[in-house]
Amino acid sequence: MKTFGNLFIVTAPSGAGKTSLVRALLAQDPHVRLSISYTTRVPRPGERDGVDYRFVGEPQFMQMLESGEFLESAEVHGARYGTSQRWVQEVLQEGEDLLLEIDWQGAAQVRGLFPYAVSVFILPPSQDELRERLHKRGQDSAEVIARRLGNAREEISHVSEFDYVIINDRFDEALQDLQAIIRSRRLKTEKQLRRHAEMVNRFK
Amino acid sequence: MKTFGNLFIVTAPSGAGKTSLVRALLAQDPHVRLSISYTTRVPRPGERDGVDYRFVGEPQFMQMLESGEFLESAEVHGARYGTSQRWVQEVLQEGEDLLLEIDWQGAAQVRGLFPYAVSVFILPPSQDELRERLHKRGQDSAEVIARRLGNAREEISHVSEFDYVIINDRFDEALQDLQAIIRSRRLKTEKQLRRHAEMVNRFK
Repeated sequence: MKTFGNLFIVTAPSGAGKTSLVRALLAQDPHVRLSISYTTRVPRPGERDGVDYRFVGEPQFMQMLESGEFLESAEVHGARYGTSQRWVQEVLQEGEDLLLEIDWQGAAQVRGLFPYAVSVFILPPSQDELRERLHKRGQDSAEVIARRLGNAREEISHVSEFDYVIINDRFDEALQDLQAIIRSRRLKTEKQLRRHAEMVNRFK
Repeated sequence: MKTFGNLFIVTAPSGAGKTSLVRALLAQDPHVRLSISYTTRVPRPGERDGVDYRFVGEPQFMQMLESGEFLESAEVHGARYGTSQRWVQEVLQEGEDLLLEIDWQGAAQVRGLFPYAVSVFILPPSQDELRERLHKRGQDSAEVIARRLGNAREEISHVSEFDYVIINDRFDEALQDLQAIIRSRRLKTEKQLRRHAEMVNRFK
């Protein structure tokens, strides 16, 4: 019997290492798909439509927003971002797991519609380490870094709304943590009994 | 801040491979301790008191039972088995995880007292495979095997009361499943926020 896929939410303050972790996870697990957001932002060099984002104009985005097509949406630095609800449902119905990289506000919106979504918050190992990581990027002014740290604090103040917390101190350990969360969710009884219904029924 | 350990229940019909899986898990994870049951059974050759079981006489067992010292207890083929509630609580308070290998009835008793216990049911990959495994042991009569299969069916009829189901088809995969369940439980937000309270508070 076909089972629905799991919906995973991964949230982290900037500098916690979320993107690298998610990339490593996807490289090793063919059954997790990453959600591709719609955005009104202009593509950066190298970004491809339908791969990194689905680039749309403001009028199309607003029309989708008004007709309730977004599972979650946000406005960041004047650009809009949104996740298509229909696409999420299609992927889950195919039995594939789907991962959303969104902020705490998006996570709250998704939980409202998908109460079984599993949410993971990734923390840096310390505030000093976070500051250092943000500095090391080298491309940002002190002002930008200070703003990022402020945003990080705001994001982290919502950590208790999440199901799991990963401390990204050693990358390999954090990756194994993320993999364990995903693997264990696939072993939940209701999933397993649907997946192996024929075999289990034969014991009756 | 010190956090309580997790209580894991592992249940399986005879022949599912539970004992080998648990042994492999314990060899690789120093923070999981196996509960040692009290029993009125006579020690088999090689069994050591305080290691394999705590061997006690019937009067002592009955006294413990009556004074409510057992978290769960059962009678199997005329011998009594029981888990000391005080010992379980002591181990959990030390912050160590504890694993109980018990049947579905013991699992139900434990859930009553420890609602946060995480229960795992291990299934053989098929009924034919289970029959074959029971035959391969070679030491039992057809009658004994038939009874074991009957007991297995009875045990499996309670699978839906458990949190997780592992199908023990390939041993290595099943071991990784069990490890993932244990690892992920340690990442639950309430555990992590207690464990790393100082660090998280610094972000506030």
